[in-house]
Amino acid sequence: MFGSTKKLGLSKSRRTGPSELTELQVWITSPDSECDDYPSVTSDESYELSVDLPFAVLKAPKVWGALHGLETFSQLLYEDEYGAKSVNATTISDFPRFAHRGILLDSSRHFLPIKVILANLETMAMNKFNVFHWHIVDDQSFPYLSRTFPQLSQQGAYHPYTHVYTPADVKMVIEFARLRGIRVIPEFDTPGHTQSWGKGQKDLLTPCYSGSKPSGTFGPINPILNTTYDFMNQFFKEISTVFPDAYVHLGGDEVDFTCWRSNPDIQQFMEQHRFQTRLQLLDIVTTTNKGYMIWQEVFDNGVKLKPDTLIHVWKGNQEQYQNEMANVTSSGYQTLLSTPWYLNRISYGQDWHGYYKADPQDFKGTEEQKKLVIGGEACLWGEYVDATNLTPRLWPRASAVAERLWSAKDVTDINDAFNRLSMHRCRMVERGIPAEPLFSSYCPREYKGI
Amino acid sequence: MFGSTKKLGLSKSRRTGPSELTELQVWITSPDSECDDYPSVTSDESYELSVDLPFAVLKAPKVWGALHGLETFSQLLYEDEYGAKSVNATTISDFPRFAHRGILLDSSRHFLPIKVILANLETMAMNKFNVFHWHIVDDQSFPYLSRTFPQLSQQGAYHPYTHVYTPADVKMVIEFARLRGIRVIPEFDTPGHTQSWGKGQKDLLTPCYSGSKPSGTFGPINPILNTTYDFMNQFFKEISTVFPDAYVHLGGDEVDFTCWRSNPDIQQFMEQHRFQTRLQLLDIVTTTNKGYMIWQEVFDNGVKLKPDTLIHVWKGNQEQYQNEMANVTSSGYQTLLSTPWYLNRISYGQDWHGYYKADPQDFKGTEEQKKLVIGGEACLWGEYVDATNLTPRLWPRASAVAERLWSAKDVTDINDAFNRLSMHRCRMVERGIPAEPLFSSYCPREYKGI
Repeated sequence: MFGSTKKLGLSKSRRTGPSELTELQVWITSPDSECDDYPSVTSDESYELSVDLPFAVLKAPKVWGALHGLETFSQLLYEDEYGAKSVNATTISDFPRFAHRGILLDSSRHFLPIKVILANLETMAMNKFNVFHWHIVDDQSFPYLSRTFPQLSQQGAYHPYTHVYTPADVKMVIEFARLRGIRVIPEFDTPGHTQSWGKGQKDLLTPCYSGSKPSGTFGPINPILNTTYDFMNQFFKEISTVFPDAYVHLGGDEVDFTCWRSNPDIQQFMEQHRFQTRLQLLDIVTTTNKGYMIWQEVFDNGVKLKPDTLIHVWKGNQEQYQNEMANVTSSGYQTLLSTPWYLNRISYGQDWHGYYKADPQDFKGTEEQKKLVIGGEACLWGEYVDATNLTPRLWPRASAVAERLWSAKDVTDINDAFNRLSMHRCRMVERGIPAEPLFSSYCPREYKGI
Repeated sequence: MFGSTKKLGLSKSRRTGPSELTELQVWITSPDSECDDYPSVTSDESYELSVDLPFAVLKAPKVWGALHGLETFSQLLYEDEYGAKSVNATTISDFPRFAHRGILLDSSRHFLPIKVILANLETMAMNKFNVFHWHIVDDQSFPYLSRTFPQLSQQGAYHPYTHVYTPADVKMVIEFARLRGIRVIPEFDTPGHTQSWGKGQKDLLTPCYSGSKPSGTFGPINPILNTTYDFMNQFFKEISTVFPDAYVHLGGDEVDFTCWRSNPDIQQFMEQHRFQTRLQLLDIVTTTNKGYMIWQEVFDNGVKLKPDTLIHVWKGNQEQYQNEMANVTSSGYQTLLSTPWYLNRISYGQDWHGYYKADPQDFKGTEEQKKLVIGGEACLWGEYVDATNLTPRLWPRASAVAERLWSAKDVTDINDAFNRLSMHRCRMVERGIPAEPLFSSYCPREYKGI
């Protein structure tokens, strides 16, 4: 990565010595910088950085590459023990291996205050992640304040005023992310994982039966009522307006079919319209001009999907997810890997080794198939995570995933990675992010919080 | 625990209603409050609390019980959604089951800033822990700034100025702890775990041999040089002055004998003075009028020990540590359990269940033997822990241990414990401590940091 080791001082004043760097020029080299746009899966994120006298030059076709280059430049600086900053002369030509490099955070199992979300977007930018997959609602709570259906959060949030994301909050998150080259893809997971939706939306969920009588509990969204489709239509119309990204994640995982099967009305309907439900929902989103992402079960269950659907692989052991990647791509779908990167699953020791070794293109398939792998996401599900422990649990473990998704396939030396990650985690700590240690060690400036 | 459910309001002004509590009287009922003393293993920590009109009364023989009672009173208060505080009328008679209820923190694998140590002492008080076992130095670093041997930290700390505990720091920790009824027991682990000592103290460590030549590496403290004993004598004389507690922890765990065996001078000495080393060291401490704690290996190795030695059990599975507790107590020694409470060993899910179920007196032995169990310690070893993640990793997992060590033996219902712990963790969060969640849930006031 480093072309030369000539050391340059960094000047803070106008009186500079002969080997002091005084300027970093940033050039956007294409006619449209995309400064006012949202990032997308096709955004050009490449940049070239030349650090030398008389000045350093950062060239990028678009603002997205310039942002990454500025981050890289900041990471090239180092400090002696008296605080004098230096940078080595170097030239860098850099671009990501995968276009989709995401972090999933879950604000339903625990509410995540906006401050935590913003701090982690900031940290994502330090790690060149470019997708915030916002698993915003789930069974446990519905913190999204919908303008169209305010009852959803009024009844379904942990608290209707203190534990919700207002339209202004959501807007702030999206803009904060955009300014860092990060897309915000919301997930409104249906038809399962919707218990909290049922509190504010009458008749949305399926009444489960015990024998011939309703048991009083509710299952997935009720697929046989017109009111369901009216609701979904309006709701997803709002979502597609509020969230500017071209994609929305529709979930579709872990649907418990036992409740549907227990309900005699659903049984009858199912015999007539096998899997039409899912199709209707996907059509709703299609009419809003969004592309959609779904968890792998929708594909596994044989639902007919639009050819541009993005299949999100999350299940099984290594052999199983590699087979899944092969199957999905041989069916011609684009795909995204998360299975090896469930960062909520903690264990004792340096589990980042496993994250680092996983490669989304390691499966049996043609070059054509490999090209359908657009990236991956590190997932931090929220059952055991909230503002108190999210940030140190995520970083620097997610940084190992970040390098896997950005760097070339052959960057795999684990000892080199350890050294880079150790330095990088101290860099995050110095910037006020409580990134946890990889092993016994110290940072020149330790974390100042508790 | 609660005698009645009459609800009393809490008044903030002098104009009070008929059912408002305006006063909490605190009575120290014995002639000597011990307000100016240090707590000890024999301190009386009992208290009685009566909450009723016209005022609440807290009675305790000593200040230590009064501190616990004040903490309990604060935990009895609850708030309605408008912020009005109430407390139920009640009478409580409370005292600890075990006299030694400790937390081990390790400031060698990672340096722990004073701020973190103080915040965790504060949290220990919220959980009625009364011993801070400060594993202050180890192989990795020597942050203790010794007045007698300043070279130890000058050479052995991660950084000689930013990563050390000055005499003033140590004094502050001890006084902060004392004011909360917490003892500070320092551990200076020898003869193993001393690599960092060797950097600042010439000839202290044993030169290891490879064949007939020194290999360039060093092993445990060198037991055959008089200079070793001179050093140890002076060093522990300082320690016994700096740390007022009646006990010091001498370590003695995981001694690697291969280096000693490789060294021909040591071999010769060992044949003549089997295990005298350890005895001499223990004698040094005895001459300073301190009692000592040691890890179980010193007992396991058959070293002759003073009868008042406190044996710290940390090894093995459940069957093994229960056998060890039986052996130690049948030999007449007092003992302390840590094996089931290695909180550094994280795993996915609610691992506090295991901590809660462990009981230090569950082993085969007489009543006499059971009485020799003076308590336990939750250990948070520092390989993967520093200021960034220590506090949420420790709390509320350590709170489960706290209840086991304080409450009566028959308080074992795991669902009740879950409810208490959940409330208690929100209480800690509200007080600014990032105690992590037990499971999907929310706190009325979430943590405000990141």
